[in-house]
Amino acid sequence: MSFTDILIKQVELSGRKVDILLRDKLIAEISPHIECENARIICGKNKAVLPPFYNMHNHAAMTLLRSYADDMELFTWLSKHIWPIEAKMTPEDIYWGTRLACLEMIKSGTVFFNDMYWHQLEAVKAADEMGMRACVGLMYLEGENGEMLEYNERNNAMVMAAYPGFSELITLTLAPHAIYTVGEKRLRSIAAMSAEKNLKVHIHVAETAQEVADCKKAHNGMTPVEYLDSVGLVNERMVAAHCVHMSDYDLDLMARNKAVIAHMPCSNMKLNSGSFRWKAAHDAGCIVTIGTDGCASNNNLSMIEEMKFAALAAKREADSPTAAPAEQVFRAATVNGAQAFNFNAGVVAAGKAADLMLVNLNDTRLTGNNLIADMVYSADSSCIDSVICNGRVLMQNGSVADEDVIVTEVRKCIRRLVE
Amino acid sequence: MSFTDILIKQVELSGRKVDILLRDKLIAEISPHIECENARIICGKNKAVLPPFYNMHNHAAMTLLRSYADDMELFTWLSKHIWPIEAKMTPEDIYWGTRLACLEMIKSGTVFFNDMYWHQLEAVKAADEMGMRACVGLMYLEGENGEMLEYNERNNAMVMAAYPGFSELITLTLAPHAIYTVGEKRLRSIAAMSAEKNLKVHIHVAETAQEVADCKKAHNGMTPVEYLDSVGLVNERMVAAHCVHMSDYDLDLMARNKAVIAHMPCSNMKLNSGSFRWKAAHDAGCIVTIGTDGCASNNNLSMIEEMKFAALAAKREADSPTAAPAEQVFRAATVNGAQAFNFNAGVVAAGKAADLMLVNLNDTRLTGNNLIADMVYSADSSCIDSVICNGRVLMQNGSVADEDVIVTEVRKCIRRLVE
Repeated sequence: MSFTDILIKQVELSGRKVDILLRDKLIAEISPHIECENARIICGKNKAVLPPFYNMHNHAAMTLLRSYADDMELFTWLSKHIWPIEAKMTPEDIYWGTRLACLEMIKSGTVFFNDMYWHQLEAVKAADEMGMRACVGLMYLEGENGEMLEYNERNNAMVMAAYPGFSELITLTLAPHAIYTVGEKRLRSIAAMSAEKNLKVHIHVAETAQEVADCKKAHNGMTPVEYLDSVGLVNERMVAAHCVHMSDYDLDLMARNKAVIAHMPCSNMKLNSGSFRWKAAHDAGCIVTIGTDGCASNNNLSMIEEMKFAALAAKREADSPTAAPAEQVFRAATVNGAQAFNFNAGVVAAGKAADLMLVNLNDTRLTGNNLIADMVYSADSSCIDSVICNGRVLMQNGSVADEDVIVTEVRKCIRRLVE
Repeated sequence: MSFTDILIKQVELSGRKVDILLRDKLIAEISPHIECENARIICGKNKAVLPPFYNMHNHAAMTLLRSYADDMELFTWLSKHIWPIEAKMTPEDIYWGTRLACLEMIKSGTVFFNDMYWHQLEAVKAADEMGMRACVGLMYLEGENGEMLEYNERNNAMVMAAYPGFSELITLTLAPHAIYTVGEKRLRSIAAMSAEKNLKVHIHVAETAQEVADCKKAHNGMTPVEYLDSVGLVNERMVAAHCVHMSDYDLDLMARNKAVIAHMPCSNMKLNSGSFRWKAAHDAGCIVTIGTDGCASNNNLSMIEEMKFAALAAKREADSPTAAPAEQVFRAATVNGAQAFNFNAGVVAAGKAADLMLVNLNDTRLTGNNLIADMVYSADSSCIDSVICNGRVLMQNGSVADEDVIVTEVRKCIRRLVE
């Protein structure tokens, strides 16, 4: 793919009008006026430029299960509805489900997702075709006797055989599902592999009160975070999804070791998992990022909506309307995620990767007195005009390539699955 | 204004394809195939028809204060920020602020709002021009000695002089602000006037724990609902906004008397007012409806977003993921509100008022397995294609008349106000 220069003309950046030149996948220059021959021009009139979103926890192809089973107890939901239909999913389903997820994420301003699902090579293909950054997880799930599940083993072998031949925007994590589905021995070997290969470890942590109670019972009173620390996983390579039920000591452990928390407020509220301690986590110095979780428990992939839920749920949890101010929430959804994955991105500044979004200042939702507060508390996906990832325009004027094809193919997949 | 027949061709209604004929402001016929000469045709391909939303509590012109003061304690927010800027608002500000509110509501599928603000005749004019149903409140606010505030008295006189000359879609409520701003004597006279003139009474009730504590102290241990019942206001004409801090007895009183609860989850969470007891209210048989509150405490007017917050907050509050199922929440946002104001609307059926919206089934957010669950948990305003109110098309293909003019004028008003 060839990347021509892109010149965004007279767009609003932090309240002033600027020209922005994108060259070689980077933000090359930001000035009041830039001239550049042969650049593709994007008109910035009535638009503002912002960093885009980094979705830190997703099961992308679960778009196929949107609104398939709602308003249920967690175990009924999983065992009677989600697992049986997941067992029927083919690689093709995963491909189309992930393309739909990418489409939906791009339309709501997201350029990266941290994925944990199966048939990962299909997700790699889908993300690559859609032009997004992605991280797919090498999944670990054990059967009752501590053996790797057969399909899981086979899948991982395929992913390892293909990696690192992925596109430059797609990387790999080690993704042990959770402490209750992967045993101590394997967790220790994953910790060693993570250190050796410098790979992130993506894992569900302390999502429910039950998980914490079971962990304490099984592991000498240790919380899930203490237990994970004991096997060598709480470090700067850890991306811990959920972290709902955390002690002060857990938060301190995460902060001291620079482990990353991915917070999913909609999923936590919808499944009634509990309330993430946003303010306590920030007071402890934790790195807090935001994700959407999969569509079966959300039921969409909008980081904009997730920011509002994060901010409002945090106020209730901390019993204070001053908790989770808009700027802090916006950083969690943007630059914190980019930094957690070591992208040179998440801020609109010269020298950074050319990841950005343009928002439409003529949208009623963005007529407020503070653009960041408008984005967190007022905006929805209709405010997003254009999305650029690593110098490539993924959406312009609200339009993404192949939208109708993707929706049509996904509807076919869903019809076959739910038959 | 003349109303021609409208024929919506081959639109999805509850899973089957139908034609819908709108005539004389009513849904005249719904059949698999309808022929009608001279009707304006709306293509229903890849669209579904649903009842639109009825926003049961709003301070519409507060669109001017969006993102002006966020993340603050309630009293600081009101006294240092909201009241001083409201004091500067001119009738023209209210007119444009309300037009923007109408634009934003139409774009997110809303056809009615129950308003409580000042310079009401400007709101009447704005709603009328935008083609929406509205109810404006005759406001009552007392000074420290129980006298009506002067501007309030003057305003009410103007509204009374103009009423009932409003358009057929716009009516009046009596709107005593709250029990802590209007004394017992006046509340009793409002109750009498409501009975005599058959007017609804729109009032803030039990929004904060402080209000309940103060009420008990001042009124022999009575809760706000008990106190309002003692002055004759808890009846089928009451629309009680918030009702956050309610005892079982309060809920029972509301249910037995067919009083209407307007629930505003975003505002309650953002200001940390408390958690509405959704499940308990439904178990008690209360009439529960949904509103957005004003933009200063939300910060938008999307009933779609409000439904998701209502459903998810209810699950947390009731400590159960089965609380507030999608169908129940959708009814609260649609037919419950329409019925509460005695509109012959809120359901897509022959003989009902022609209030409806079309949603775009090609939107990724609506590709799920249940359209109502998709609307509650997944949709945002970008899914709304067309909105029809009382047989008049207010939006078609996502486009509303005068959008840019309204945004431009509102920006001018805001600049002047915040200077």
